[in-house]
Amino acid sequence: MSNNPDVARRGLLIILSSPSGAGKSTLAARLRAWDSTLNFSVSATTRAPRPGEEHGREYYFHSREEFRDMVAKGDMLEHAEVFGNYYGSPKGPVEEAINAGRDVLFDIDWQGGQQVRASALGKHVLSIFILPPSIPELERRLYSRAQDSKEVIDGRMSKSRDEISHWPEYDYVLVNEDLDETEARLKTIVAAERLRLSQQPDLVNVVRGLNQEFEERS
Amino acid sequence: MSNNPDVARRGLLIILSSPSGAGKSTLAARLRAWDSTLNFSVSATTRAPRPGEEHGREYYFHSREEFRDMVAKGDMLEHAEVFGNYYGSPKGPVEEAINAGRDVLFDIDWQGGQQVRASALGKHVLSIFILPPSIPELERRLYSRAQDSKEVIDGRMSKSRDEISHWPEYDYVLVNEDLDETEARLKTIVAAERLRLSQQPDLVNVVRGLNQEFEERS
Repeated sequence: MSNNPDVARRGLLIILSSPSGAGKSTLAARLRAWDSTLNFSVSATTRAPRPGEEHGREYYFHSREEFRDMVAKGDMLEHAEVFGNYYGSPKGPVEEAINAGRDVLFDIDWQGGQQVRASALGKHVLSIFILPPSIPELERRLYSRAQDSKEVIDGRMSKSRDEISHWPEYDYVLVNEDLDETEARLKTIVAAERLRLSQQPDLVNVVRGLNQEFEERS
Repeated sequence: MSNNPDVARRGLLIILSSPSGAGKSTLAARLRAWDSTLNFSVSATTRAPRPGEEHGREYYFHSREEFRDMVAKGDMLEHAEVFGNYYGSPKGPVEEAINAGRDVLFDIDWQGGQQVRASALGKHVLSIFILPPSIPELERRLYSRAQDSKEVIDGRMSKSRDEISHWPEYDYVLVNEDLDETEARLKTIVAAERLRLSQQPDLVNVVRGLNQEFEERS
């Protein structure tokens, strides 16, 4: 990559959405393990931390007042209220990463996806939706986590149906029948997207060099 | 794939362009060897067959009158005159392949690329430009073919410079430093493109099935 700001690459905003239990978090973790240059957008939330969760790792934990204040200041790239709690993506770390040419991965829902695409940073967005292979399988995965009550799971199932209805808003759609296969497809998509013309502004220099060589020849 | 025409996939038109000697034909051959479902658009030409070339394999060989007749009838998806000979892509085989959901690979120049994109079949186009690593290397490859005179090669080098100037018109650009690496990238691009929303119309049925399962649950 060049240091010339005219041809410096701006990072991609990679949005991964899916209903809860479709494998999104596992896939996001595998993508990060595959590419250590990938930044992950840690969400802010007003929900209480669960045992083992750490501020700045799973989430940034804030009071409702703090959260509203960040939104009012324009510090949130996107935010929404889900089951009575606020969730959002702080803008600062994303801006910093993409300006340095690093891609940022977002594990967010359709509401967040729409807001990120519509935002000032939404010019270079790659969005991928993960569909579950079946609904009984989705429900089984939610129960196997064994951390939520039936009422909570019913609520999540209803939210899942709503989430799934937004699949046509995404650039790519993957049906997660097999986790390894889906992981491979996800990597293929990210690798290909980086070869797009729009993601290689430095090619201007490559072609300038070739034209120089044509000149030297004649 | 479904037999329902509403959700039947139409094939992609994959356009591969590059200056002569940048490795395009080798890469096209490797892509076809990798994916036997890929159709190749055999060009029509008015130039004389070279030894070993076969009508319908390397090219469809036609007289200038026949060629002009095909153009007049609208049977050419694109055509141009290069070094005094006509070249073009017959529309019939392309239409047939994409209607059957098969992708079609085009080994054509920027003029052909522009015409294919602008054509009635140009809705689902994936275009890739191959840049040579250097101009001396490009010239070396042209000489090593040992089938053209210095004048012919000078003409090709001039056409190469013109061809290269059209690199920003393509979806993806690859610098062919290493043939195996470029081949891998080409496959990555084709594989990813097939996972796009627009290339999976059958997902409508998948989501219909998931909604059915939601209904059965409640």
